[in-house]
Amino acid sequence: MVSIELDILAKNNAYAAANRAYFDRHGILALNLVSSPGSGKTTLLVETLKRLGGRMPLAVIEGDQQTSNDADRIRATGVPAIQINTGKGCHLDGRMVGHALESLAPAGGSVLFIENVGNLVCPAAFDLGEAHKVVILSVTEGEDKPLKYPDMFAAADLMILAKTDLLPHLDLDVAAAMANARKVNPRIKALKVSARTGEGLDAWISWIEAARTMATTGA
Amino acid sequence: MVSIELDILAKNNAYAAANRAYFDRHGILALNLVSSPGSGKTTLLVETLKRLGGRMPLAVIEGDQQTSNDADRIRATGVPAIQINTGKGCHLDGRMVGHALESLAPAGGSVLFIENVGNLVCPAAFDLGEAHKVVILSVTEGEDKPLKYPDMFAAADLMILAKTDLLPHLDLDVAAAMANARKVNPRIKALKVSARTGEGLDAWISWIEAARTMATTGA
Repeated sequence: MVSIELDILAKNNAYAAANRAYFDRHGILALNLVSSPGSGKTTLLVETLKRLGGRMPLAVIEGDQQTSNDADRIRATGVPAIQINTGKGCHLDGRMVGHALESLAPAGGSVLFIENVGNLVCPAAFDLGEAHKVVILSVTEGEDKPLKYPDMFAAADLMILAKTDLLPHLDLDVAAAMANARKVNPRIKALKVSARTGEGLDAWISWIEAARTMATTGA
Repeated sequence: MVSIELDILAKNNAYAAANRAYFDRHGILALNLVSSPGSGKTTLLVETLKRLGGRMPLAVIEGDQQTSNDADRIRATGVPAIQINTGKGCHLDGRMVGHALESLAPAGGSVLFIENVGNLVCPAAFDLGEAHKVVILSVTEGEDKPLKYPDMFAAADLMILAKTDLLPHLDLDVAAAMANARKVNPRIKALKVSARTGEGLDAWISWIEAARTMATTGA
């Protein structure tokens, strides 16, 4: 089974490399948003698109087992979006994203958000060609999650601690959540964000703009 | 790839059948608890064990990628527990549970709770030999989740809508969450539960007792 797994990952890596070359060629910053189901990825993304709209071209790829609910929500903001339904599949892969790029054709200089299937395990292993994985952890999920799902937090460059407006109603130890993330990934950055109150959105937008500058510098 | 997948599932089913025969032989009710990470499975389980303790023998198998936090929490209630760490793996399988049973050796007539890896996708396809899958959906995750992760809700016999104490702080449409679950599984039962306030725990305990009666009747 190990050799089959390595074969699958090797094939995926080839597709991811092609995507990455495409992003480099067109000065596109691709961010792979990963999390548990229901962490608030889409709500955060809608607020993010509203703030970035008009300042730079934007595009979205949505991954879900079923439904096109999320792409519908994105398109309502005026940003082009493609929904990928993975069916039995538990994550997006490089090939799916490559196909989506053919029809989505994001403008040069775009920020492309790829919202992965809600799953804190499987998407960690599959490179999509993105510049960064961003892991969203809802404050309702508990401070132990980075230790229990270490691959995902090790693979991410940024952790967004989301739904912070709910903190007064919870027992979450925020400092412990941050410390646990750093235990599995000493280089991970962390932001506290509430899409509902707007807390932390400015810092998140600044992070995206800086990442875009880096992605398009020397590309 | 399809034939490899079928081969894996066939092998798993053989292990699951052996587990199921073991449960039947010993009059054990096995429940497979599945959900997203951070839905509150372990907290609910701890409260459940406190209520069932002394009335029937209990045992727990805990699945996580890493850490033995959950088994430690269970053992603090006095109930025997075994932790399975799946490493890169995204779900428990029949073989892992079979191995755990060898050392756990639950007493005849036990209720055995198997807390799967937090993942709303992959555990749906893997039978562990359980009598029922119970899917826990936190109210913070949104009413659309049954439609977006239909395999899991189709595989479960009971949906627990958990953390209902948070409902006053959320926009969740409870009726829509229930209706969406029934869309993918018309036979699914649903309970609203808060481990914090105790709401719905009596109904959940009654459901377990009835399932245990059914599992041991005619076994």
